[in-house]
Amino acid sequence: MAIITFTTDFGEGSPYVAAMKGVVLSINPDARLVDITHAVPPQDVRNGALVLASATRWFPPDAIHIVVVDPGVGSDRRILYVEFDFGRYIAPDNGLISSLASLQKPRRIVAVENREHWLAEVSHTFHGRDIMAPVAARLSLGLDPAELGPAVEGLVTIPTVKAERVEQQIEGEVVEVDSFGNLVTNITSTMLDGAPMGETVAVKCDGHQTNGIFQAYSDQPEMTLIALVGSTDRLELAIVNDSAAAMLGVTVGTPVIVDWS
Amino acid sequence: MAIITFTTDFGEGSPYVAAMKGVVLSINPDARLVDITHAVPPQDVRNGALVLASATRWFPPDAIHIVVVDPGVGSDRRILYVEFDFGRYIAPDNGLISSLASLQKPRRIVAVENREHWLAEVSHTFHGRDIMAPVAARLSLGLDPAELGPAVEGLVTIPTVKAERVEQQIEGEVVEVDSFGNLVTNITSTMLDGAPMGETVAVKCDGHQTNGIFQAYSDQPEMTLIALVGSTDRLELAIVNDSAAAMLGVTVGTPVIVDWS
Amino acid sequence: MAIITFTTDFGEGSPYVAAMKGVVLSINPDARLVDITHAVPPQDVRNGALVLASATRWFPPDAIHIVVVDPGVGSDRRILYVEFDFGRYIAPDNGLISSLASLQKPRRIVAVENREHWLAEVSHTFHGRDIMAPVAARLSLGLDPAELGPAVEGLVTIPTVKAERVEQQIEGEVVEVDSFGNLVTNITSTMLDGAPMGETVAVKCDGHQTNGIFQAYSDQPEMTLIALVGSTDRLELAIVNDSAAAMLGVTVGTPVIVDWS
Repeated sequence: MAIITFTTDFGEGSPYVAAMKGVVLSINPDARLVDITHAVPPQDVRNGALVLASATRWFPPDAIHIVVVDPGVGSDRRILYVEFDFGRYIAPDNGLISSLASLQKPRRIVAVENREHWLAEVSHTFHGRDIMAPVAARLSLGLDPAELGPAVEGLVTIPTVKAERVEQQIEGEVVEVDSFGNLVTNITSTMLDGAPMGETVAVKCDGHQTNGIFQAYSDQPEMTLIALVGSTDRLELAIVNDSAAAMLGVTVGTPVIVDWS
Repeated sequence: MAIITFTTDFGEGSPYVAAMKGVVLSINPDARLVDITHAVPPQDVRNGALVLASATRWFPPDAIHIVVVDPGVGSDRRILYVEFDFGRYIAPDNGLISSLASLQKPRRIVAVENREHWLAEVSHTFHGRDIMAPVAARLSLGLDPAELGPAVEGLVTIPTVKAERVEQQIEGEVVEVDSFGNLVTNITSTMLDGAPMGETVAVKCDGHQTNGIFQAYSDQPEMTLIALVGSTDRLELAIVNDSAAAMLGVTVGTPVIVDWS
Repeated sequence: MAIITFTTDFGEGSPYVAAMKGVVLSINPDARLVDITHAVPPQDVRNGALVLASATRWFPPDAIHIVVVDPGVGSDRRILYVEFDFGRYIAPDNGLISSLASLQKPRRIVAVENREHWLAEVSHTFHGRDIMAPVAARLSLGLDPAELGPAVEGLVTIPTVKAERVEQQIEGEVVEVDSFGNLVTNITSTMLDGAPMGETVAVKCDGHQTNGIFQAYSDQPEMTLIALVGSTDRLELAIVNDSAAAMLGVTVGTPVIVDWS
């Protein structure tokens, strides 16, 4: 049974999402539909790319992921089918696949151009419903991706702000705020290799500082600022049982420094 | 495999929705459940009617749509089963089916009165769970709609504000604000037949004006006010890559005038 | 076909929920996934317990309910598998199962300790994904719960504020505010047995008073404060077609008195 997921910036409860699901089920009534999220901030391709990288890789590798964060809909931006070892993606070629492509080279990229597999009438403003949904449904029924259009090389990437390690200091930044208000950075556990975890390491953000890198929120008392490597394998700043984003007034883009010099 | 959808004003994440799904799955564990939306504003029958018309028609025609926007629950308002060529609906008879019925004459209307197919205990405040969910589940197992109660004629309709075309001017209004802040009007593409699409047509709303009717958001630069025929086949006003509702301070009910005189 | 449900405090649209679903489907692609809610306020175990009690009991008794409201994740708090006649639950042992256990003695409790059924790598911050999801998926494929770990007795309970009836007065409190702003109390219909329902009974809350206990919202005119026994079988205070919480400025914990002396 084929799995098709949906990631959009339409907002939770958007009837536009329901329309896409209706189109899929009209073509393949047996498809299993799963929502990744519809809470990507409107037209925030960078956030959509991060969400894809953290959530979709847990799915079976033959799952088909439809991604609609599409400020360029109706322009000549391409729609791509991109296949990795860990999953298959249909998305506008605007950088949404960047984070995934930085993890692994795609094993196949196809430009979605063959109108035969789209809805008969295609609007200029909703290709998620009129192109991506029917194409995903047909792939889930076994359509060969080669039928979608020509194989292509390369896709649009958006520059990702990489954290930098210089001697005994790492300079990164907050790249996501999760629903608990935890501040997730772009500093990966690999970058922390060799850094001390105890009191001798300082983590600094926007005038605040906490010492030590812990394993679990419960390693510190309530209302304490804590640094830890979270479930996405990246350094997080959190306030135990409260929102670090709200209490520190910090958001995406704020620099975070790890220092054990 | 039967598809059952849910449209309510319970709010996203409401456990009341989950209770309805539990009732359905207890009767038909094989039913495919799909959320249309639970973000209909509380008791806003008019909005619920618009959502139904735009989202549910994309589903297979044998899908069963449960609709619970039900300010009159516990009164003597009827519950109806209404069958169209494009879908089957179970809803209180309060105007929710109005928009659909204005598109097509229902091929069958049945009053849901036979308690045999309801839950054994029926509350006075939650007929979605106690009546509509079990009835939908039983229909999905093949129950003949004639078993639900007597066939009836006619249903409650709510007056819809129709846009009017007088010579070279159309007067309509904003009927929906979508999650991007786009202002969707009641002016359909059919009403625009014969109107010019270029600079000679003006679209006016609340003191603002834009010239030309475009095909895609990307036809104009960022932050521009643009008029276009959107994915619901109706005229929209949008700010490219921003929220027209927020930037113009405009909401449902605001007049919109198209003028090429 | 096995049903697995999800109740969390991750927020609607959280990609963390999607990660759990991906893990489940990677192990059992045929599992039927249903969201109960992800809108439990962050780390509010008491609210999570109430939601479980009101929503999950409508599901088939072999459904498996994953519950992740887990402020103690990474500490030595246990994870339990708890089986009732009405359903099977996997949750941290922090009081989430309290409300259910006060309804019925669990027929089986197992401590989830056998790492063989978890993901190979277990984070310290997300046991919902790394332990509870794979365990639920394996149970849904027929794994004997005895394989999860040792049978245990007893679970953590949180004290619930019980309403008290003294002669012709009941003193309770608001325990939930639903998405309509209705104030749901801890006064059950059973406690009201023998109380008059007409004008001679007064229901008082925060300086406001209404007389009579009704059956349906529609029994009173719009904008009236009304007391009724709602769909969860408990006394509610509501404003007909508006939000009692907003209009009365009342929230969880506010005393409610029923008086017919």
